Amino acid sequence: MTVTVAQAGRRRFADVSALTQREPGRFAAEVDPEWTIGGKPNGGYLLAMLGRAATWERAHDHVVAASAHYLSSPEPGPVAIDTEVLRAGRSASQVRVRLEQGGRSCVEALVTAAHLAEGTTPYWDAGLPERSEVSLEDCPRLVPGLPGARRATIMEQVDVHLEPATSGFTTGQPSGRGELRGWLALPAGEDFDPTSLLFALDAFPPATFDIAFSGWVPTFELTAYVRALPAPGPVQVLQRALLIEDGRVDEACFVWDSRGRLVAQGTQLAGVRLG
Amino acid sequence: MTVTVAQAGRRRFADVSALTQREPGRFAAEVDPEWTIGGKPNGGYLLAMLGRAATWERAHDHVVAASAHYLSSPEPGPVAIDTEVLRAGRSASQVRVRLEQGGRSCVEALVTAAHLAEGTTPYWDAGLPERSEVSLEDCPRLVPGLPGARRATIMEQVDVHLEPATSGFTTGQPSGRGELRGWLALPAGEDFDPTSLLFALDAFPPATFDIAFSGWVPTFELTAYVRALPAPGPVQVLQRALLIEDGRVDEACFVWDSRGRLVAQGTQLAGVRLG
Repeated sequence: MTVTVAQAGRRRFADVSALTQREPGRFAAEVDPEWTIGGKPNGGYLLAMLGRAATWERAHDHVVAASAHYLSSPEPGPVAIDTEVLRAGRSASQVRVRLEQGGRSCVEALVTAAHLAEGTTPYWDAGLPERSEVSLEDCPRLVPGLPGARRATIMEQVDVHLEPATSGFTTGQPSGRGELRGWLALPAGEDFDPTSLLFALDAFPPATFDIAFSGWVPTFELTAYVRALPAPGPVQVLQRALLIEDGRVDEACFVWDSRGRLVAQGTQLAGVRLG
Repeated sequence: MTVTVAQAGRRRFADVSALTQREPGRFAAEVDPEWTIGGKPNGGYLLAMLGRAATWERAHDHVVAASAHYLSSPEPGPVAIDTEVLRAGRSASQVRVRLEQGGRSCVEALVTAAHLAEGTTPYWDAGLPERSEVSLEDCPRLVPGLPGARRATIMEQVDVHLEPATSGFTTGQPSGRGELRGWLALPAGEDFDPTSLLFALDAFPPATFDIAFSGWVPTFELTAYVRALPAPGPVQVLQRALLIEDGRVDEACFVWDSRGRLVAQGTQLAGVRLG
């Protein structure tokens, strides 16, 4: 089932999320037209840009917690990102970050930045969900252009590989468990870092697709915790829905690195045309 | 084992979280000296004040998502709360809220507000953790003044009732599961609403107490989702740790109302002197 896709036209994550500093705390960036779903940029991709801005000054070089509220989707093209340091502490800093386009606020986020040490190990991890043992090689690549879906050109940029047991939605047969599992790789073999892990937490399709086809699932709020520096290689992802009620769904996301270590966690509240 | 505590000196949540509007978007409030742990106000209590400010104008009357980053703890006494509407949409609004004391920023939060409809029912809830069947009557009340703990006067204000299977830490015998379960009631039989549910998401002791005694666990970030209007009566709480690494822990919280319906969810990243 694995489909080979041409690598031409793929741009590195470091490039599509690059910033240019205009003055202290003010940045210019360019939303890539290909890193989109139905023409709208992926929310995790935008959060990664905000995280990059929040840690630009390197007082504290890694995002450890970021909370974004999505106001209106920017179009592909130029955007401005402004930061304001709320507190610069000894072991952590808090920064407010806003992404605007043409004077319109698109995303606002609060970021707590700190330094993630090399070579840490979990003290206790018994509360985490079980990591799947299915290897990337046994997970077919999800190809864009699903029937009924908006054109998800981002799926031509990154490699989302879904476990066969959770990819029933691609043939109209969701399992009903509300869970997608698989692997994620960036273009050109680029390794993950704490910034691109913010993207990884929103890279998978909505877990609601494994319940009922729900169309676009716009994110209201996305919270990301980065827990450790990731090892080189692709990351393993679990995206899971918890509750759908009154047109809203919450989803949790867990990201493990190639060593099998939990490196990032996310939660989001989104709108859904179910319930 | 249930301990009866005098109800004298207890103040209603609506009173200790009350705001006075100074001008549009600017409020004065008073942090109650009793709603504290070791003299520091509870983070969920402060978030509830921020949520009250964010929904003051009633364009959208309920917080559905709130993300707070804690900068520095205010002392009990007067605080100022400022709001800025980031977007006022048809079905939802986004508001930035900041709590200051003496010109020092203490908490900043982003809030998405909307209207929670009456009488909704879950469309799908199979992703939620199992709700415990242990009734409030079978859960002894947690009393303040645990050995080694800071003086948690807030526990004299609210009623936290812990399931015996998860209260081993009170006698120095944590279960190691990283999970606290039980019930929560506000003073004077006050019912919960979407604002006080923000407090409920941070009312229990840290779930790390069920792993090893960890002292004070300062919250860096707290995300709250309110999913439905709560029924009258106490709420049932599950507070659970997932991963402790490099001096940080994430905890998830689930709150069910007296009908057994999930009404709020939270996640937080906190510092911990373990790992």
